[in-house]
Amino acid sequence: MSVKISSKEQVESIFDKYEYFLFDCDGVIWLGDHILPKVIETIGLLKSLNKIVIFVTNNSSKSRNDYVSKFEKLGIKGITKEEIFGSSYAAAVYVDKILELPKDKKVWVLGEHGIEQELSELGYTTIGGTDPKLIENGVGFDPESPFLTDLDPEVGCVVAGLGLTLNYLKLSATLQYLLKDNKSLPFIATNIDSTFPMKGKLLIGAGSIIETVAFASGRQPDAICGKPNQAMMDGIKEVNPNLKKNPSRGLMIGDRLNTDMKFGREGGLDTLLVLTGIETESNVLAQEKQVAPTYYADKLGDFYELTK
Amino acid sequence: MSVKISSKEQVESIFDKYEYFLFDCDGVIWLGDHILPKVIETIGLLKSLNKIVIFVTNNSSKSRNDYVSKFEKLGIKGITKEEIFGSSYAAAVYVDKILELPKDKKVWVLGEHGIEQELSELGYTTIGGTDPKLIENGVGFDPESPFLTDLDPEVGCVVAGLGLTLNYLKLSATLQYLLKDNKSLPFIATNIDSTFPMKGKLLIGAGSIIETVAFASGRQPDAICGKPNQAMMDGIKEVNPNLKKNPSRGLMIGDRLNTDMKFGREGGLDTLLVLTGIETESNVLAQEKQVAPTYYADKLGDFYELTK
Repeated sequence: MSVKISSKEQVESIFDKYEYFLFDCDGVIWLGDHILPKVIETIGLLKSLNKIVIFVTNNSSKSRNDYVSKFEKLGIKGITKEEIFGSSYAAAVYVDKILELPKDKKVWVLGEHGIEQELSELGYTTIGGTDPKLIENGVGFDPESPFLTDLDPEVGCVVAGLGLTLNYLKLSATLQYLLKDNKSLPFIATNIDSTFPMKGKLLIGAGSIIETVAFASGRQPDAICGKPNQAMMDGIKEVNPNLKKNPSRGLMIGDRLNTDMKFGREGGLDTLLVLTGIETESNVLAQEKQVAPTYYADKLGDFYELTK
Repeated sequence: MSVKISSKEQVESIFDKYEYFLFDCDGVIWLGDHILPKVIETIGLLKSLNKIVIFVTNNSSKSRNDYVSKFEKLGIKGITKEEIFGSSYAAAVYVDKILELPKDKKVWVLGEHGIEQELSELGYTTIGGTDPKLIENGVGFDPESPFLTDLDPEVGCVVAGLGLTLNYLKLSATLQYLLKDNKSLPFIATNIDSTFPMKGKLLIGAGSIIETVAFASGRQPDAICGKPNQAMMDGIKEVNPNLKKNPSRGLMIGDRLNTDMKFGREGGLDTLLVLTGIETESNVLAQEKQVAPTYYADKLGDFYELTK
């Protein structure tokens, strides 16, 4: 059964035991645009102890650069791009390192700026995505749009993720690429979260959007890059050789049992669930032993509060 | 094995055998906005023989009134509302007759004008749907939209279908109603076609849109109203008592094996597949005996051409 963190001694023993602290962001560090209590102090404390912090997020609408700005804006200073792993970055790395898509091929994007920026940083040209010509300005759908009729022969891959500017044209154009050449273009999903928590509501998640084009094309994604998929963990371990060698030196902290905790556990890390996000204490305590988080806490800021 | 219609004698024996001729529209009567060859003459011939013609369509974006206008515009004169069964009408009838939703309850619509109009004709107030306040004019998604935060307590049902003006707000607002009150509001799908053929392309179908909100809410529709579901056939038989008594007096004509032919067969009718739509001759001939169409023909207009 998961151990609740409620004393200074427990926190100190965690500081002794782990070198790597991996964090989910939304529900752990912040809720939307509001930083959670004593998070700044807790991150500061970990850094003062020379711990390695890594932020792992499934939100593909932002790039790592966007996240650097968000951390700064919320008052968490000095977080670098290298400390952030987002599903848009993971998808771009997958296209580059696993698919080895030639750089003269283009990538069709169903999603936002974050995916485009990460692919662009790796040298790819993207089409679709946030192209304003795909926005219909409320004038209705044009079935003769060139996005449907003149497919770009240089597209070599489709990457799909969260898109708040979704419309019928974007979905239908994506479908054309998924059906093209006997359904042979690789189909990469940033993540498959069914919902996207925002301002206290559950909105449509990347997984539900991807489900639309998957159902229409009769295909499933060839790869899923976000948590709990281990492709993301493998990428993190690649740049942190000590974690790769000793995953038990790492602690994954998150607010979702079926993504964050699964992600950490399957990567060989210990896990800590915070109750500031989507799960309740009774959910945590109802978990069977083999999938229960190692620890749980009311909030991440307890690390700081309990040690003062 | 399916019999190919290729002689005057075969056509005359069909005219003798059947009293009711049920037609799918797209791929049989027209392709998009183009009427198929000799269809006007074939319908005229059937009417001159006092046959009962019924048009059955899964396209929920149009109401029966819209279809009356479309038939007229394409030169098929004198088709009445009573001869048309659309999935939007079937959904409205389901809400009224099966759910028996009180008329002071509202219906949240994910879809177009067709659904709104049919529900309105049966005395219901709809919200959502084509409300221009749900169109975002390309300015981006507003997570504080009242459609997400102020759910209408009078909504008693959700009807979802095809929507070419789909966006993230419409999907996410629909999700709020599907999650509301412990997921207890009835969830009605007009149809679940995965794709929507238009101008020679396969676009996103109602079923793929419904899949998005189904996946996000963790729910499946409580009822599916379009072909091949027999709720639609039951409605047709209700107003055609002779067909109800003798379904073998009816012939279902369509262009899709897995919707039209299944719909006719499971309703006890004989079936005829035309090759002007989505299927090929080799597809038809590859069907196992128990699901093969009774007949197939190159096109509906062959009825007229072969008898002249």
